[in-house]
Amino acid sequence: MIMEENYPEGKCAADYADEKPSDVRELIRVGKITGETSGMCADYAQANLVVLPQKYAYDFLLFAMRNPTACPLLEVTDMGSRKLNEMAENADIATDIPLYRIYRDGVLTEEVTDVSDYWRDDLVSFLIGCSFSFEGEMLKADLPVRQIEEKCNVPMYNTNIKCREAGIFKGNMVVSMRPMPKQHVMKAALVTAEMPRVHGAPIHIGDPGAIGINDINKPDYGDPVEIREGEVTMFWPCGVTPQAAVMASKPDFCITHSPGHMFITDVKNVNLKYREAWRI
Amino acid sequence: MIMEENYPEGKCAADYADEKPSDVRELIRVGKITGETSGMCADYAQANLVVLPQKYAYDFLLFAMRNPTACPLLEVTDMGSRKLNEMAENADIATDIPLYRIYRDGVLTEEVTDVSDYWRDDLVSFLIGCSFSFEGEMLKADLPVRQIEEKCNVPMYNTNIKCREAGIFKGNMVVSMRPMPKQHVMKAALVTAEMPRVHGAPIHIGDPGAIGINDINKPDYGDPVEIREGEVTMFWPCGVTPQAAVMASKPDFCITHSPGHMFITDVKNVNLKYREAWRI
Repeated sequence: MIMEENYPEGKCAADYADEKPSDVRELIRVGKITGETSGMCADYAQANLVVLPQKYAYDFLLFAMRNPTACPLLEVTDMGSRKLNEMAENADIATDIPLYRIYRDGVLTEEVTDVSDYWRDDLVSFLIGCSFSFEGEMLKADLPVRQIEEKCNVPMYNTNIKCREAGIFKGNMVVSMRPMPKQHVMKAALVTAEMPRVHGAPIHIGDPGAIGINDINKPDYGDPVEIREGEVTMFWPCGVTPQAAVMASKPDFCITHSPGHMFITDVKNVNLKYREAWRI
Repeated sequence: MIMEENYPEGKCAADYADEKPSDVRELIRVGKITGETSGMCADYAQANLVVLPQKYAYDFLLFAMRNPTACPLLEVTDMGSRKLNEMAENADIATDIPLYRIYRDGVLTEEVTDVSDYWRDDLVSFLIGCSFSFEGEMLKADLPVRQIEEKCNVPMYNTNIKCREAGIFKGNMVVSMRPMPKQHVMKAALVTAEMPRVHGAPIHIGDPGAIGINDINKPDYGDPVEIREGEVTMFWPCGVTPQAAVMASKPDFCITHSPGHMFITDVKNVNLKYREAWRI
């Protein structure tokens, strides 16, 4: 159920750019914020969520390990636990995301702002890195991010790049596309390559047809964006990949975040450059 | 059983420095080579092996995911399979390592050159990155690697750095130590940081006491090496960490490589710098 007012006192997401993640999660937890999180707590990483029963957890963990660019795991919880140990303190996975989706046998059945009533002792939560993190670094490096300029969703495409299978999970990689002035292509590749925990370097640069994309103006997910004269299309592995693989395998129960409604972590984007060193 | 002659025709490991990995694996497979692999196929990555029954595989995979610097996974096989899909072609995990160890309830019971007779349909194999790979890059960068100069094993130490627990697996990190002339410390840190899939950057530089090492001249594993005037002790996460965690949890059955007797992959060390890009 989406509330008509998604933010208190007529505010918008950008008004929370400088807030502490724990403060924003508190507002989300009590239902005062139910809207999209893009732009909130600007320096901090946001994450995708996939929650599965334990019987699917090994296959999914193996799928992520075998496809780390599309499915960069930030944290995996202990079975049944709603707490995180690494990416956030005093967080509750079942309440701290503004909007969740419930899937049964691969079919979206409910969209809710709190999954406490759906929680089970056999659930395992997977937090997955999100391209919001590297887009922040791109903007700081004066690189254009077209879908932010156009205030729409990033264009995403199915490709012919096969993921490595793991148990019941398989599928092709989904990619996101950002057009780049040709003189900035190398810089964009290097800036994002420094952040492997949030998808990292582009998986392909240039000819969309080479990875099975027939019409760049018709994305399979998200919105089309303008590609200007002299710009090169750059493609990054996308976090929709694991979600698509999960849905295609039709697990009997699954919880995810609703697109754009992410989990806001306590870890700054800049720290995701340093792999594990920040965790000591 | 270790054969008295570990290499054919009076050769030593270094005589195989320029051989193709598939050719050396063939000699290992048929029992002509049963010795240590350090120095063989010099440009190619070698890997640690841990083989566990499926019932332990989720916990171990999660332990590796939560402790990626100590336990950098290169490949995880499908249950029961002796084949690899990514790190080597036409390899057989059960025959292509010169010497294996069999553990029952955490106790070493046999050391054998072939584990075909021990294979079971429920076994999962984990290939884990090895510091041989980054030492090769250090030598190319004119950095000293003391235990290679002294022709002994690298000194390794138990520390007070707690690993993140996962199911039945827990323990403290084991580190390897390489002393470095103080003017080369930064270079050594940067060269190894470029190779996160084989332990990556040092976990600690300087004061051994700060990570719980009381006597640097008494390593817990391997051999002591000389630390010269003006040298700084540098510590890296060590692949003994996951093996120690596995043994401490006493799984009813486990196969590993015997120390120094590694699996030789088809993937060049240099390609491990590039995370996943080489796999496309």
